[in-house]
Amino acid sequence: MTVSDVVELEGHIIDSGLMERAFTVVMELGGEFDIEEFRVGTSKDEESYCRMRVIAEDEATLHPILHELHQSGATLAAPTDATLEPAPADHVVPDGFYSTTNHPTDVRVDGEWVPVGNIEMDCAVVVEGVERAPDGTVEPTGDGDVTAETRVLNGIGEGDLVVTGDAGIRVKPPERPRDSSGPFGFMRGGVSAERPSASLIRDIAEAVAETKAQGGHVLCVAGPAVIHAGGGPGLARLVREGYVDAISAGNGFAVHDMERSMYGTSLGMDVETMEHPRKGHKHHIYTISEVIRAGGIEAAVEEGLITEGVMYECVENDRDFVLAGSIRDDGPLPDTITDAVEAQNAIREQAREADLVLMLSSLLHSVAVGNCLPSTTRTVCVDINPATVTQLLDRGSAQAVGMVTDVGTFVPMLAEELLE
Amino acid sequence: MTVSDVVELEGHIIDSGLMERAFTVVMELGGEFDIEEFRVGTSKDEESYCRMRVIAEDEATLHPILHELHQSGATLAAPTDATLEPAPADHVVPDGFYSTTNHPTDVRVDGEWVPVGNIEMDCAVVVEGVERAPDGTVEPTGDGDVTAETRVLNGIGEGDLVVTGDAGIRVKPPERPRDSSGPFGFMRGGVSAERPSASLIRDIAEAVAETKAQGGHVLCVAGPAVIHAGGGPGLARLVREGYVDAISAGNGFAVHDMERSMYGTSLGMDVETMEHPRKGHKHHIYTISEVIRAGGIEAAVEEGLITEGVMYECVENDRDFVLAGSIRDDGPLPDTITDAVEAQNAIREQAREADLVLMLSSLLHSVAVGNCLPSTTRTVCVDINPATVTQLLDRGSAQAVGMVTDVGTFVPMLAEELLE
Amino acid sequence: MTVSDVVELEGHIIDSGLMERAFTVVMELGGEFDIEEFRVGTSKDEESYCRMRVIAEDEATLHPILHELHQSGATLAAPTDATLEPAPADHVVPDGFYSTTNHPTDVRVDGEWVPVGNIEMDCAVVVEGVERAPDGTVEPTGDGDVTAETRVLNGIGEGDLVVTGDAGIRVKPPERPRDSSGPFGFMRGGVSAERPSASLIRDIAEAVAETKAQGGHVLCVAGPAVIHAGGGPGLARLVREGYVDAISAGNGFAVHDMERSMYGTSLGMDVETMEHPRKGHKHHIYTISEVIRAGGIEAAVEEGLITEGVMYECVENDRDFVLAGSIRDDGPLPDTITDAVEAQNAIREQAREADLVLMLSSLLHSVAVGNCLPSTTRTVCVDINPATVTQLLDRGSAQAVGMVTDVGTFVPMLAEELLE
Amino acid sequence: MTVSDVVELEGHIIDSGLMERAFTVVMELGGEFDIEEFRVGTSKDEESYCRMRVIAEDEATLHPILHELHQSGATLAAPTDATLEPAPADHVVPDGFYSTTNHPTDVRVDGEWVPVGNIEMDCAVVVEGVERAPDGTVEPTGDGDVTAETRVLNGIGEGDLVVTGDAGIRVKPPERPRDSSGPFGFMRGGVSAERPSASLIRDIAEAVAETKAQGGHVLCVAGPAVIHAGGGPGLARLVREGYVDAISAGNGFAVHDMERSMYGTSLGMDVETMEHPRKGHKHHIYTISEVIRAGGIEAAVEEGLITEGVMYECVENDRDFVLAGSIRDDGPLPDTITDAVEAQNAIREQAREADLVLMLSSLLHSVAVGNCLPSTTRTVCVDINPATVTQLLDRGSAQAVGMVTDVGTFVPMLAEELLE
Repeated sequence: MTVSDVVELEGHIIDSGLMERAFTVVMELGGEFDIEEFRVGTSKDEESYCRMRVIAEDEATLHPILHELHQSGATLAAPTDATLEPAPADHVVPDGFYSTTNHPTDVRVDGEWVPVGNIEMDCAVVVEGVERAPDGTVEPTGDGDVTAETRVLNGIGEGDLVVTGDAGIRVKPPERPRDSSGPFGFMRGGVSAERPSASLIRDIAEAVAETKAQGGHVLCVAGPAVIHAGGGPGLARLVREGYVDAISAGNGFAVHDMERSMYGTSLGMDVETMEHPRKGHKHHIYTISEVIRAGGIEAAVEEGLITEGVMYECVENDRDFVLAGSIRDDGPLPDTITDAVEAQNAIREQAREADLVLMLSSLLHSVAVGNCLPSTTRTVCVDINPATVTQLLDRGSAQAVGMVTDVGTFVPMLAEELLE
Repeated sequence: MTVSDVVELEGHIIDSGLMERAFTVVMELGGEFDIEEFRVGTSKDEESYCRMRVIAEDEATLHPILHELHQSGATLAAPTDATLEPAPADHVVPDGFYSTTNHPTDVRVDGEWVPVGNIEMDCAVVVEGVERAPDGTVEPTGDGDVTAETRVLNGIGEGDLVVTGDAGIRVKPPERPRDSSGPFGFMRGGVSAERPSASLIRDIAEAVAETKAQGGHVLCVAGPAVIHAGGGPGLARLVREGYVDAISAGNGFAVHDMERSMYGTSLGMDVETMEHPRKGHKHHIYTISEVIRAGGIEAAVEEGLITEGVMYECVENDRDFVLAGSIRDDGPLPDTITDAVEAQNAIREQAREADLVLMLSSLLHSVAVGNCLPSTTRTVCVDINPATVTQLLDRGSAQAVGMVTDVGTFVPMLAEELLE
Repeated sequence: MTVSDVVELEGHIIDSGLMERAFTVVMELGGEFDIEEFRVGTSKDEESYCRMRVIAEDEATLHPILHELHQSGATLAAPTDATLEPAPADHVVPDGFYSTTNHPTDVRVDGEWVPVGNIEMDCAVVVEGVERAPDGTVEPTGDGDVTAETRVLNGIGEGDLVVTGDAGIRVKPPERPRDSSGPFGFMRGGVSAERPSASLIRDIAEAVAETKAQGGHVLCVAGPAVIHAGGGPGLARLVREGYVDAISAGNGFAVHDMERSMYGTSLGMDVETMEHPRKGHKHHIYTISEVIRAGGIEAAVEEGLITEGVMYECVENDRDFVLAGSIRDDGPLPDTITDAVEAQNAIREQAREADLVLMLSSLLHSVAVGNCLPSTTRTVCVDINPATVTQLLDRGSAQAVGMVTDVGTFVPMLAEELLE
Repeated sequence: MTVSDVVELEGHIIDSGLMERAFTVVMELGGEFDIEEFRVGTSKDEESYCRMRVIAEDEATLHPILHELHQSGATLAAPTDATLEPAPADHVVPDGFYSTTNHPTDVRVDGEWVPVGNIEMDCAVVVEGVERAPDGTVEPTGDGDVTAETRVLNGIGEGDLVVTGDAGIRVKPPERPRDSSGPFGFMRGGVSAERPSASLIRDIAEAVAETKAQGGHVLCVAGPAVIHAGGGPGLARLVREGYVDAISAGNGFAVHDMERSMYGTSLGMDVETMEHPRKGHKHHIYTISEVIRAGGIEAAVEEGLITEGVMYECVENDRDFVLAGSIRDDGPLPDTITDAVEAQNAIREQAREADLVLMLSSLLHSVAVGNCLPSTTRTVCVDINPATVTQLLDRGSAQAVGMVTDVGTFVPMLAEELLE
């Protein structure tokens, strides 16, 4: 006695690795398969198709297999509507809720495929514009469009209709670019350890320029090491010249950046060598204290306290910035969002708008931004620690590149490529 | 035309490195010195004394030298009272505020040395129980004792009397233990790279046991890697048996720990191998959702949802725990303090109570706790990344040891040493 | 005008990733393909088959595509004999020589497929037992079997018949195990970062035990850190009890191991804490000097100079060891092979005999051993540096596992699992 | 009943840390001290003096204390001649041999202080020009000067007169520069983690230029990563222009460098992106094979096979290079010294001639060179792995700096600073 179900795979399912993944999932999770139909694209541009019956000894084995196949991009051959269950309480998901991937996703409601808005990993999907009868059937209310979107736990309210199970859901993992030409062709997911650094920086510069040329939005996630290592002036120029549209950072980044502006030259210290006792931590506190006195970063720029640097250019050129607080912060600055949930929401807005994200030496902030990114957003990760780069790349982005290098040489060289 | 001032150094000023540091500070910052008196302790237990005139070409050169000598433990030969200035606004320090070290410190008020309470690095010192006349003179109000304590920026209110300058301040860096015997003798500040691991774990166990035997308080800072790597059961036992009095962690640690309890066996997954698709992230969300539904960790333990693990033992044995939120959290749990400032304050309370801190695989939380520790608290840092251990040790603790090892083998071996 | 050729792929070509790789190779290198036949195995145990015409605009494009497909396991549909060219001089390969993978390989000589002996990566293949006519045709001499084997450059003599081009060569990359059960099922090529350490060590112990139970040979590559970290006694026991059949190490490993035996207790030093001035380097030199005086390690054991440790157990239990010299060695010991080419040859012998290789904290020696291993040998890499583990795993072994842990806790725990 | 001896310390003994170290040594090794005289330099340029009686309960305790004090720079107050014992056999040291530091050292022979030539760490000292009577007294033979020099074990012949014990030996650890100005002032022994990278590279360039301006010799130790990461052209220019006088590397470095010259453009591959299948390992073997055919690197340059790159510039500009073999080498090249002892000797010659050593991304070769360097040679260590930089700096060089950066950006920026 076995149970089974039929799934379909379509597209460039061989070279995207989907077929391999599907076979592996079935075998690793203890199932069997029976290929009912297989048409291979006979040329490079032709898509392939596979209809596969998945067989397992019981539902408890079959279910996780189907779930995984789903998440990888397979669809049930005979689509039914998605099941919707009301959330039992605020911030609580119903039993069996569907947990999202970061890939483009549709849910089937009342026979129609509805795209899931603001796709983000590990969320629930809430459907609006429908009502659910006691027997579980769902109908449009007719008051507006039927819509679906991802929600993190604290965005769920009691009674929200949440998708459960795997039925009626369609996931489309983006395919990696099929060749390595073009300005984004080098972003193929790996850490480029044995590439000449200068030529890789040139490629990244070209990808940034191309993104801007296409009207895209570049978000830069930056850690304090960017400033320590001397990348501040270069990044400030990229903000001024519009190659970077937004900054996502922490309290420390902003303070170090403004400290450079406030105490770099006015007090006669050599900003180049940064040689001063006890690492000038007192200036760190002073900087925060003065910005608090002024009433915030914008006010500090306006009253002439801050006259250069990344934050200065953000204010002067009206670039969006989010400073997310953390438990190691001094101060913090009035601009720093100290509540983690609020900060996540602000980061989420930034992430959704981005077409290319530069992650520079900031594990915490890069993970936070990365958590909110769909797999279709281009990503460049730069860090001197290879483990950090590997961790950041490991989230299924279709076009990504990692570079293990010194941010203190990377930023000036990138700025030179783009601006000179 | 030169300016000068006289400082004194007392104690084991040679083998503690204070003399060397004093000479180096003067020379690196461009000064000269004239040793007016020097008495060296002629035997191991006898203290030494040095009176040194520091000479510089102008006040701008002399001041930072005196400041650094101060912070290192030198005192002005002719002590005067500390200068107190009112804070100009909430969260704003007066010009020239004194920024604390993490060493025991006194300030001189109205001719008396007052110990600074709750010493912590990079804070201001606020004096209470005095009033300041318009001419700057300070007198006790007589309404209570004159007290001084450290304050972070957001603990400062307008008008608080803040210590400025370096005069009237006495810093006493703790001396490292003068020999390597005794249960804490191995905690001499280094990363023990070439020590046999098993014997070092034995020493750490002995230090924990001795701390408890002396009635001390052991705080454990733990990252999620403790759970992933299989250290959960061992740590839970240490909490239950009272070797760990408090836990300082993040939302992720608690969720991973409780997920192990909730889904480890009930859903038939092999907790040992943790092999399941997509790393079981859905269980992560479920765990949070269920704990939210229950109303928090304590309620979840009480209703039988959580039946083992570190959080369970904390609740059952009434151990203090702080879960500090961060921008990469899922959920978060109702117990997680999402505001960074509030979380810091909770961590500060934990840090002040601790006699020995075990930092296990958590850079963010360990830095946050470390920021609040006086240099007299014993510290053990364990991480597989040597850069993390180095960074955590680099804060002047008098008795500290770092170990670059796998927390997944460390915790079980430590538990075995202590419990068997 | 295009050129083309037909290749075939057979076996579990989808879940092994071969199809994906084939498609990717063609597209990345600028070719096109036409799938002439495709039969997918409809169940888990049925193999698949693909015949693909590869099309390119010219030979210069086609050739590298065919070469890569070859190396990945595809075969030319219409096999011809391999081309053989005489080596023009000692240590010199003929133009267009075939450079080996580490996968099982056959070459076609006079219509017969001959297996290539002692397969090893990046070598040439020399065919013996044939003679080559001036027109390039090859015939068996009849004096013995026709054989083929890999040769490194310095094993090639003038006139040796070396395989050139890609024709007549068949590469069979081993498939990874199709499920994760069994004693070797966990060796699937990844670095197990989030596995509980203790349970992974248990799995490794089981794989070692199973290898021995099957009559296999276990080779341990060990760096000096094994001794520093306290793993010496555990490894010595594994050698004594026969779980480790051979040791591949350097001069430093052997000296540290014997120093422990010679000076651990006799001079009153505490071997446990290893606390002594300047790291006891003088004992290091003494150890070498004494072993030189005795006439070598075996003689030193026999005269009672060395009474315990890994080298002692090797001598006493007649286990093979190779000590390969390097430019950072002190001494060296008389047993250390100082010539790199000779040492490589000795390592090559060890590698060929091994069924499972444990690589413990030794990048240099592990790379040297790994270079000589066919992809069918099981490999376990243990190091505290994740970059080292990644580098060592990245050589296409079909069954391998990496563990980022502390060798000082790993070895005792492994020994305990196996011996208690 | 105690035993004691008197030692003297002279110089900048406080700010060099010598006094601190002396006190620490005595206390850690279980002794007591009695300061008989102490004169502190009252100003920056005046030296200090300390005469200290060291007291211990028995000779076994006293001896290691005196030994350590010695190695740190203390001298016995009442100097006697050094004890000389004949080596009992080739490559064997007499009992109690004196093991060298890497600091300038004198030995007292027949009442005269003789400088030890070619000082190098962990060696024996052999005295020549004297003969030893049966009673142990030593007299000049009169046939030539009395000389002393370091010898590694395999440089010792039976009967050589080797210094034993600690008496009659004077070690002078170099003092670190007393201020941070001047072209070498930044080389103060630390890893500059928080320095702006570009400014540190500027400082290093200045130190190289200044060394050349003073007629000094610059040795560059380089790993293959220099070539992979794109640093080849920059390093080649530094060799051509005479900023680098000698190269110390391995077989792999030379092969990668020449492969770039031979196959970078001639075969139509894009040297910039290095994109080609299987990392072009076949070219690696070809390069070696062709250079073997030509008869070596010089011959290959002469016959026009190699037309650019680091090795080319070495040959063309007559710069010394040493290629030391290792067990992971392919080939090797005819120029590679495969015997580790011979290679060490060649490296030793290079090390002795160097005034400034640049160590670029090569742990093995840098350790080998570092082992042969006196503590007076300036050292710059560049690697992306902080643990490598720390290990290389940890050998008591008086002027050293470490930089954790990407050699692929470092070398071009250094070359630009020096050449443009």
